[in-house]
Amino acid sequence: MADIIDGRAIARQLDEKTKAEVDALVAAGHPAPGLTVILVGDDGASQVYVRRKIKSCEKVGIRSNEHRLPADTSQEDLLALIDQLNRDPEVHGILCQVPLPDHIDTRLVLRSITPEKDVDGFHPVNVGRLSTGTGGIVPCTPLGVMMLIHSVIPDLTGMDAVVIGKSNIVGKPVANLLLDAEATVTVTHIYTHGLPAICRKADVIVAAAGAPELVKGDWVKEGAVIIDVGITRIMDEETGKERLVGDVAFDECQHAKAITPVPGGVGPMTIACLLANTVQAAKGLMGVNKDVSSDYHDVPSRSMFTGNGNIPNE
Amino acid sequence: MADIIDGRAIARQLDEKTKAEVDALVAAGHPAPGLTVILVGDDGASQVYVRRKIKSCEKVGIRSNEHRLPADTSQEDLLALIDQLNRDPEVHGILCQVPLPDHIDTRLVLRSITPEKDVDGFHPVNVGRLSTGTGGIVPCTPLGVMMLIHSVIPDLTGMDAVVIGKSNIVGKPVANLLLDAEATVTVTHIYTHGLPAICRKADVIVAAAGAPELVKGDWVKEGAVIIDVGITRIMDEETGKERLVGDVAFDECQHAKAITPVPGGVGPMTIACLLANTVQAAKGLMGVNKDVSSDYHDVPSRSMFTGNGNIPNE
Repeated sequence: MADIIDGRAIARQLDEKTKAEVDALVAAGHPAPGLTVILVGDDGASQVYVRRKIKSCEKVGIRSNEHRLPADTSQEDLLALIDQLNRDPEVHGILCQVPLPDHIDTRLVLRSITPEKDVDGFHPVNVGRLSTGTGGIVPCTPLGVMMLIHSVIPDLTGMDAVVIGKSNIVGKPVANLLLDAEATVTVTHIYTHGLPAICRKADVIVAAAGAPELVKGDWVKEGAVIIDVGITRIMDEETGKERLVGDVAFDECQHAKAITPVPGGVGPMTIACLLANTVQAAKGLMGVNKDVSSDYHDVPSRSMFTGNGNIPNE
Repeated sequence: MADIIDGRAIARQLDEKTKAEVDALVAAGHPAPGLTVILVGDDGASQVYVRRKIKSCEKVGIRSNEHRLPADTSQEDLLALIDQLNRDPEVHGILCQVPLPDHIDTRLVLRSITPEKDVDGFHPVNVGRLSTGTGGIVPCTPLGVMMLIHSVIPDLTGMDAVVIGKSNIVGKPVANLLLDAEATVTVTHIYTHGLPAICRKADVIVAAAGAPELVKGDWVKEGAVIIDVGITRIMDEETGKERLVGDVAFDECQHAKAITPVPGGVGPMTIACLLANTVQAAKGLMGVNKDVSSDYHDVPSRSMFTGNGNIPNE
C-alpha cells in the first residue's frame, strides 16, 4: 500500500510554524503581519474562499482585512485601491481574488500589486525571480506541492520528475522549483506523445492537468511519488452522486511509494502557504531577515551567469 | 550526411529583415532605433564584443552609442548613468556589458535597466513574461536558438525536446520557449542520470552545458535536430593547435537530420537577435505595433488562468 501524504496534517504543521514566527515578530516589538484581501463582485465560490482565508489568518495571528467592492467597480477605482494598499505600511500582503469581472484586465491588476506584497506570487517580477532561482515570493500551490514532495523525498538531486500540465500557475512554477532542487524535469501537456511511457520512468509525478483520473495505475512505476494537483467534480455512475476526483486514478496506484489524496492533499497546503508567504512578505518589508516558511523562500542566490560555461552577453 | 544549419546565413537574413524595419520606421518619420552600450573597465574580450555590436548596429541603421567607464567607476555612478539612459527618449536599448568589476553588484545593475529597454532580456520582468508566455523581450541567445530550430522544424507541436544545461541565460529560457511552441521538454543537467538514453529519444537536442563534445554520436537518434550552444577552446592533441569545439561531437552526428556547426551556428545569431530586440524595444517605446524580428516577440497572450483546469487562488 502506498503511503498517503496527508496534506491536512502537513498544512497544520506549517501553520504552527507560521504562528510561531508571527508570535516571535510581535514579541520582538514588530506589528503582526497584515493581509488585505480584495473581493470584487459577489461570486459565491470566491466569497467562500475569501472567508476561509480570512479565518485562517486569525488562527495564526495574521491581521486580515477585506475590501468588498461591487461588481461594477471600475478598473480605475480598483487600481487606485491597490495603489493605496501598496503604500500602506500596515499592509504586508495584498491578494486580489480572481476571477475579476469581465470589464477588468486581470493581468494588469495583478501586475499593479507591488512584488514585495504579492503573496500570490503572480507578479512578473516574482515569476522571473522564481525562474532564475533568485528568491521572491513563490506561488502558493507550487510551494505546497514542493513541501509535500519533500515530506517524503528530502533530496531530489538527480531524480526523474514529470510534470503533467504547463500552466503558469502550477505546471511551470513547479517545474522551476524541481529544477532548482536538482531534479531532471520533463514537462508534458496536451500535445505530448507517449505520456504513459514518460510517466512510467518518473520517480516523481506532479499531475496538474485538470483531467479526471488521467494517470492510470500502469503509468506509475513501483516506488514513485505522486502529487495530484487536479480536482474535478464528477458524477459517480455507480452511486449517482457527485464526488471530487484528482488527475490520478488513486485506487490503481497502491504500488507507488506515496500519493496525495484528493481532497486532502495539495488543497489544504495552498492557504497554509498563503499565510507563510504573508509572513515572509512582512519580514521582507520590515527588514527582518530569516524567513519562516520554507527553503523556497531562501533559494540560494545563484549568479545569473554561471552554470553553462558560455560567455553571456557576448 | 546531416544538414548544416548555417547560423551565419540565417543571421544575415535576420539582419536584412531588421534593416528593412529600421528603414520603414525612418521612412514613416520616426527616429532610427538607438542602442547604448555601457562598458566598464578594459577587459579585452569585452572590448571586442562591444566593438562588434556597435559595428553591427551600423550595418542595419541602428544608431549606437558607447559609454566607456573606468574600471573603478562606482556602482552609484553606473546606476546614475543607467537612470539617465532609462529616461532618455532617444535611447531605446541599453546593454551593460558583463562581466562587471567585482565591486559592482551585477544583478542589481542589470535589474536597474528599465524592462522596456532591456534588450538583453535579463530583467526579472522580462524573464517572468517569457516564463508565462506574455511577451516581453526574449534574451538573444535563446531567441537565436529557436530561430535556428524553426529553420528546419517549422512546427514543434508534440516533439520531444531535450535541453542540456539549466542556466538562467540559455537552458531555462530555451526550455520555456520550447514549451510555448508545444514541445514536450526535458531539462537535464549535471545531476541527471542516464543522459545518453534521455537524448536518444529526443527529436530536438539543445546542448548548452559548456562541456566539450559531451554529446556523442550514439546519444543522437536518426533524424534528430541538434543545436549546439556550447563553445570551448581546446588544445587539439593531434595538431597541437587550439580549436573551438561545441558540446556535441559534430563528426559523429552525421545521422542527424540537421546540426549547427561550432563556430558558425548559434554564435552569429546572438548579435542579430540583439539588433532585432533593439528594434522591437524601439517600436514598443514609440508605440508602433507590429514587431519585427520573430514570433517570440509576439507570443500569444495566454491567460495566466487557463490550462490546468484548477481553480487558481482558491
